[in-house]
Amino acid sequence: MELVRRRVATRALAPGEKLPSIRGLAASMGVSPSTVVEAYDRLAAEGLIRSRPGSGFTVVGSLPLALAEVAPPVDRAVDPFWVSRQSLDGGPDMLRPGCGWLPAAWMPHATLRRAVRTLAKADDALLTDYGATRGSLALRGFLARQFAGEGLEVGAEQILLTASGTQAVDLIGRLLLQPGDTVLLDDPCYFNFQALLRAHRVKIVSVPMTPTGPDMALFAQALAVHRPRLYITNAAIHNPTGATLSPQAAHRVLTLAAAHDVTIVEDDIFAEFEPEPSPRLAVLDGLARVIRIGSFSKTLSASVRCGYIAARADWIEALIDLQVATNFGGPSPIASEIVFRAMTDGNFRKHLGALRTRLAKKRREVSGMLEALGIRPWLEPRGGFYLWCCLPDGCDAAKLAQAALREKVVLAPGNVFSIAQTAGNWMRFNVAQMSDPDLPAILRRALKSAAD
Amino acid sequence: MELVRRRVATRALAPGEKLPSIRGLAASMGVSPSTVVEAYDRLAAEGLIRSRPGSGFTVVGSLPLALAEVAPPVDRAVDPFWVSRQSLDGGPDMLRPGCGWLPAAWMPHATLRRAVRTLAKADDALLTDYGATRGSLALRGFLARQFAGEGLEVGAEQILLTASGTQAVDLIGRLLLQPGDTVLLDDPCYFNFQALLRAHRVKIVSVPMTPTGPDMALFAQALAVHRPRLYITNAAIHNPTGATLSPQAAHRVLTLAAAHDVTIVEDDIFAEFEPEPSPRLAVLDGLARVIRIGSFSKTLSASVRCGYIAARADWIEALIDLQVATNFGGPSPIASEIVFRAMTDGNFRKHLGALRTRLAKKRREVSGMLEALGIRPWLEPRGGFYLWCCLPDGCDAAKLAQAALREKVVLAPGNVFSIAQTAGNWMRFNVAQMSDPDLPAILRRALKSAAD
Repeated sequence: MELVRRRVATRALAPGEKLPSIRGLAASMGVSPSTVVEAYDRLAAEGLIRSRPGSGFTVVGSLPLALAEVAPPVDRAVDPFWVSRQSLDGGPDMLRPGCGWLPAAWMPHATLRRAVRTLAKADDALLTDYGATRGSLALRGFLARQFAGEGLEVGAEQILLTASGTQAVDLIGRLLLQPGDTVLLDDPCYFNFQALLRAHRVKIVSVPMTPTGPDMALFAQALAVHRPRLYITNAAIHNPTGATLSPQAAHRVLTLAAAHDVTIVEDDIFAEFEPEPSPRLAVLDGLARVIRIGSFSKTLSASVRCGYIAARADWIEALIDLQVATNFGGPSPIASEIVFRAMTDGNFRKHLGALRTRLAKKRREVSGMLEALGIRPWLEPRGGFYLWCCLPDGCDAAKLAQAALREKVVLAPGNVFSIAQTAGNWMRFNVAQMSDPDLPAILRRALKSAAD
Repeated sequence: MELVRRRVATRALAPGEKLPSIRGLAASMGVSPSTVVEAYDRLAAEGLIRSRPGSGFTVVGSLPLALAEVAPPVDRAVDPFWVSRQSLDGGPDMLRPGCGWLPAAWMPHATLRRAVRTLAKADDALLTDYGATRGSLALRGFLARQFAGEGLEVGAEQILLTASGTQAVDLIGRLLLQPGDTVLLDDPCYFNFQALLRAHRVKIVSVPMTPTGPDMALFAQALAVHRPRLYITNAAIHNPTGATLSPQAAHRVLTLAAAHDVTIVEDDIFAEFEPEPSPRLAVLDGLARVIRIGSFSKTLSASVRCGYIAARADWIEALIDLQVATNFGGPSPIASEIVFRAMTDGNFRKHLGALRTRLAKKRREVSGMLEALGIRPWLEPRGGFYLWCCLPDGCDAAKLAQAALREKVVLAPGNVFSIAQTAGNWMRFNVAQMSDPDLPAILRRALKSAAD
């Protein structure tokens, strides 16, 4: 195959020209004719060559063979998409202290590979059919049992699998939001909530985050003044701050939400990183006005796309129709099967325990390294991989991020997380992505360059 | 594991109770202690039992273990979701002449299983990372070469992989439509276009389909009167009618669209079923105002969720942002890898050839069977698995579908495809889902029952 590709690329074989006969090429390369047949079949399947009855194989046309990925421009504006686009498309030689996931080497590969090997032996229907609209019953049953362990009793029919945690929020927005509605977010908050809500044409208001939850006086005021339809927040370990909701704040948020008839979306994506469980709005509320969403991207695999929604039964019914209308179903049944197999693999629990220990150590190390550069974490998070940090006085995070990008380092500047744009002097760091020994020196140079 | 599950289900083991010791259970069952450890680990991972340091394993709580899928109610209203919900959730004992896909047994399993086995040996990053925002470069390169073979030269950077063909249309809607805009559809057309557009809060107008494309006088009139922003249609083999666009109709549609500045979404999902290529709006237009979408669900696997959009470069850039905002990316990189491996597997091309032959035979057989019941196909389609049929005089398709559903047969009544609700006497049949020998008798009974 490589031989033919090269000859086509170098025009040694021109468009329309006949390829060497199967027998001739096999003899000249010292391989069996069936090997050449297979190579020609694959090249034909790729569209590079074509078989014409009676005249053998010919080259299809001159085609761009050297396809390279297009990296995002370095001078792209720093907006809520900046971190995503740079992190996702930056290429393999970038360092990514700004990205929102663990390095590939930290993920549970043995568990995943076992699950994929089992998949090769699955039923025909699992490999080819759409699957039920709610998604895998096995995985929903697993989630229902996990929730029951937290004291939240829900039937598997109250759980809808989605193509991702993000799509879960998107579907909820489609169900509950009208253009022009208002949605309340934490400030700072996960930047993609903003990007997503803009696609829903709604107004966004925000309340400052404290180490124990939203600022309660301002939260109450925002509900009264802006009458938001939804409040979207993180459970367990808040992104980007690492804050944890206190029991008092949790109860107060629910009381205020009930008084103002606000629905809450609680994103539980970081649950597995907690050393001990913290209060959950979804559990306290029993899914009356709280919708729980989550995914498996942070601890198992971001490649296996699968998220979920747990909510009131009538909302789930309406969400199913919306998911059919906009995606003809949720996650790949193949993806759900891999997730279910992995989640019930005893080794995965052990992996999670080791991961929490590894991250705790890394958070301490990186905190020390950053403090030596004058970059101070806001608080010491109970778990996870983020440190929300204050930069040295007068340092502009967006400028620092652009300076770092020129050195092939993707950072996550504060204002991409801030609705009120009050985090210009802040930066989110992912401790798991900061093991490169050159990083302290690069950050020092970028800090200097941003200050100039 | 089964033993423990049963004991918990029957309350032989109560919530909070200790499980038998590992050594004791191993001895009593005649298995090794490590087998029991693995079973307990998996049950703990499922959340059924819990390990407490020093006190062994205990039962977590009483949980609903017998989880059964909820089938949609038989008396659900016949709307554009009716066919999807009944087909997807009807359960394994339903017959599905109304559904929109091939039976599992007709799909290329050997190819898929080969692709999955290869996947188990893939790079760590492929199994765990999000992947680039446009999706697999290998698969996009494959598509670009296929398109080049049709005379449509596009770079891989002009192709965006999506989570499904439906999501492709949805993203385009999000980019190009404002609430209140008007969209033009064929009448009849794929029912999910309607369901999807309702989620976009747009007005829908339609033009009757003829065997060679939309009725051209009414098409011209609809563009002039309603000024639609988009026209969404099928390429190759129209769903549900089986019509094929003639070269004259293709040119005329493009000329009129240019005169009224309408963008066209051409859904190429049935391309592989054509015996010979028919005119494509996307190719004639060179992707100036036509957006091509497609997926691999009909010929390879509906479980492997993956679709694509080929469009103008600036639209692709904007669509990437929208896909990140609403799904944090497109298909699972694992899904794209399976699709790429399968598409370039020489056996898949052979499978497609055999499939076309098999379908041609089946279309003839089923036409004969239906005509014996007084059900007449509108035309003889060039390919694919649909027959759009006129029912006996006075027979209401929705009534017939509800009568059939009581006999566990899902049909696709005409008006779910018709914007103007003028297909109450029509039915779409999927010939590949009609091999059950009882079906003629069931249809005969349902026809009688619907006429009563």
